[in-house]
Amino acid sequence: MDDYNEIMIEANAHCDGPCGVYDPASARIAGEAVQSMTNKMIALSDSDVDCSSASYINTMSRYASIKEEEAQKCKHELLVLWTDFFKPQHLESLPNLHTTFWNAAKLCSACKVEVSSIHAQELMDSIEEIHNMFWNVKGKDVPWIRAS
Amino acid sequence: MDDYNEIMIEANAHCDGPCGVYDPASARIAGEAVQSMTNKMIALSDSDVDCSSASYINTMSRYASIKEEEAQKCKHELLVLWTDFFKPQHLESLPNLHTTFWNAAKLCSACKVEVSSIHAQELMDSIEEIHNMFWNVKGKDVPWIRAS
Amino acid sequence: MDDYNEIMIEANAHCDGPCGVYDPASARIAGEAVQSMTNKMIALSDSDVDCSSASYINTMSRYASIKEEEAQKCKHELLVLWTDFFKPQHLESLPNLHTTFWNAAKLCSACKVEVSSIHAQELMDSIEEIHNMFWNVKGKDVPWIRAS
Amino acid sequence: MDDYNEIMIEANAHCDGPCGVYDPASARIAGEAVQSMTNKMIALSDSDVDCSSASYINTMSRYASIKEEEAQKCKHELLVLWTDFFKPQHLESLPNLHTTFWNAAKLCSACKVEVSSIHAQELMDSIEEIHNMFWNVKGKDVPWIRAS
Amino acid sequence: MDDYNEIMIEANAHCDGPCGVYDPASARIAGEAVQSMTNKMIALSDSDVDCSSASYINTMSRYASIKEEEAQKCKHELLVLWTDFFKPQHLESLPNLHTTFWNAAKLCSACKVEVSSIHAQELMDSIEEIHNMFWNVKGKDVPWIRAS
Amino acid sequence: MDDYNEIMIEANAHCDGPCGVYDPASARIAGEAVQSMTNKMIALSDSDVDCSSASYINTMSRYASIKEEEAQKCKHELLVLWTDFFKPQHLESLPNLHTTFWNAAKLCSACKVEVSSIHAQELMDSIEEIHNMFWNVKGKDVPWIRAS
Repeated sequence: MDDYNEIMIEANAHCDGPCGVYDPASARIAGEAVQSMTNKMIALSDSDVDCSSASYINTMSRYASIKEEEAQKCKHELLVLWTDFFKPQHLESLPNLHTTFWNAAKLCSACKVEVSSIHAQELMDSIEEIHNMFWNVKGKDVPWIRAS
Repeated sequence: MDDYNEIMIEANAHCDGPCGVYDPASARIAGEAVQSMTNKMIALSDSDVDCSSASYINTMSRYASIKEEEAQKCKHELLVLWTDFFKPQHLESLPNLHTTFWNAAKLCSACKVEVSSIHAQELMDSIEEIHNMFWNVKGKDVPWIRAS
Repeated sequence: MDDYNEIMIEANAHCDGPCGVYDPASARIAGEAVQSMTNKMIALSDSDVDCSSASYINTMSRYASIKEEEAQKCKHELLVLWTDFFKPQHLESLPNLHTTFWNAAKLCSACKVEVSSIHAQELMDSIEEIHNMFWNVKGKDVPWIRAS
Repeated sequence: MDDYNEIMIEANAHCDGPCGVYDPASARIAGEAVQSMTNKMIALSDSDVDCSSASYINTMSRYASIKEEEAQKCKHELLVLWTDFFKPQHLESLPNLHTTFWNAAKLCSACKVEVSSIHAQELMDSIEEIHNMFWNVKGKDVPWIRAS
Repeated sequence: MDDYNEIMIEANAHCDGPCGVYDPASARIAGEAVQSMTNKMIALSDSDVDCSSASYINTMSRYASIKEEEAQKCKHELLVLWTDFFKPQHLESLPNLHTTFWNAAKLCSACKVEVSSIHAQELMDSIEEIHNMFWNVKGKDVPWIRAS
Repeated sequence: MDDYNEIMIEANAHCDGPCGVYDPASARIAGEAVQSMTNKMIALSDSDVDCSSASYINTMSRYASIKEEEAQKCKHELLVLWTDFFKPQHLESLPNLHTTFWNAAKLCSACKVEVSSIHAQELMDSIEEIHNMFWNVKGKDVPWIRAS
């Protein structure tokens, strides 16, 4: 091992990916997909369809599966921000950092277990809160724009 | 099979995911990571380091591997837009649709094969062009904001 | 950066994987699985079973999920051919290249959304067309043999 | 190629991952999840619920999907032990090695296809047998402790 | 939506996977692999080998890549415990819950960025601490046994 | 549980995927990629290049990584044939079934650990042997055609 090693650790230890390319938009896009799938599942089950048809089970099970996958991706993207972007020095100005992320992650799990438009909206609200926390720390004014 | 099947195909055939949640930001974020990794690899190989150290090979091979993964993700996200978001009716107003996406995909591959800051920038330019095509079709004015 | 870099780009720029190992058989195998799952789903929903049993929902939802996965894999394998194997010089002799691949990719998506034996067969037909285009370009006479 | 190459092959050829970190606990944890999902699916389908509700299909299809994934993971972890940990010299003292793993792998597949608490238990029994074979070969006395 | 929905949320809302199959052994196995790869990388770079040979770069880059993957898996397994197993009622008896997991996750990232046997050992120590916290909450006395 | 369950297990227990779509071509394609990457790594390390350049390490580490991935995929595809396609009744006419697959899987691992054109060729030979065993059992005469 050499001196260079020390320098590199210095230079990289604050992130394990490409510095500066963190963006809460990834979590937001996944969250929108969770919400969209949740609402489609409720609408379809409330409609007057033959629930024993191949079409019905194909559509419902793939909606459930896309919801699962996107909720998992949303959770992953949020936790990347928590574990890698935010640093100990941010805790003073953001005393609720841990609780905010813990709740957001638990909402991702709830959106898998349930088909709940209420929890899907709460998840979107908590991603918006994290969007604001993130861009505040970066000192940039980035508007919250949904794709759907 | 039943009537319901016909209705559902009608309602869903234009996309195989959650309608309305397409967003070129996913490709943009991956493209920024490709560019960041490319530039870091060039900077590190130009610096005065011991290229036989464990640190050097650890850093270079993981930069190459993150570049590979993000270029693949970028390509995938772009192709989702090409195959699912854009429809035959868009071809008239966007006569270069196929060529634009073909070139963008080939740039993703080039950014894997090479360590080229020129091609990384060309990739970002072509993602910006697709960002504009996309939001034009949606009739929304969404600014191009990079995270890095 | 050095001269060697130029040479390597020259030597590799036409593919981002192992040159010469492209094979449309990967897309064909995935397409056959999509068709098989589609037909099994239709047969099972047409049979006289108790659609509330654990067995029924287990079988139907895993058939839907295998269909989804294989359709995705089929699309991916086809797009690797489009983005990496085919080059600008092939466009003259294959003027429908872009349209053929666009339609094939859209059929993959349709086979996810629907449970349609018609679209599953159209997908197989379009893979066979691509199989022929591919081996024509390679100047080799490889027969179209299905595994099922 | 050089002498060093020979030495390295010597040193590494008996495994393709990190020597010494094989542990049948990975297969055991996945097997427990398969059994848990199987039993939950049976209990839910035997209960008095409205099987056309969005909740029912969400829960059943995600249980089926977690069962599928964990059975696949279980199979993968078992086969890593078979292909990489066990060596030709173990065949003399373990004449049933191949048959034990073949049957265990086939039980993983059966637990995907079916919702059978009998096969789920047989899978757990065969993982326990492999746990004992493994730690016997390592000459260590490690108790079989389930997490559930 | 129906009454059944309420019951199911009640029954499942505390976890999004198979209750009772959480096991910190998964994180421990991944952590051991990180430590093993780290030590092998240091040993190989300290040895007297030709670092321009194909063997050397093959071994070093795959060790770096296994280290990366296992550190990611370790982080994922730890965060599943944090987001899903632990509940608000555990905070009183475990006031350092958030900090413990935050540091463990940051150590996973550090073990990717660096080739550091010190950080690899600190990661193992923090997994052992979490192992103890976990089994304390479950009221079971499970020994900490390493596979390597 | 119901009678239907028994029927379905009968009908599906011999495979856990889409019956009839097994095809050793998937393993063959992956094996060809392993061989191609192996030979390219040897050629590049034998050439007169500056092994400290960003291009060199980018190319070598991604060749190693593609080799790793394809060897893993090859092993997976082979083991699907062993665990799911072949049944106890095939053991009489194929007494070497287990040994053939065990050796083929161990060759996949060797091709990860080493950069050996000899082992890469032995892997291809053993895939060809399995190709012949497979199509013999199916009673079909399918020629062994490589894509490269």
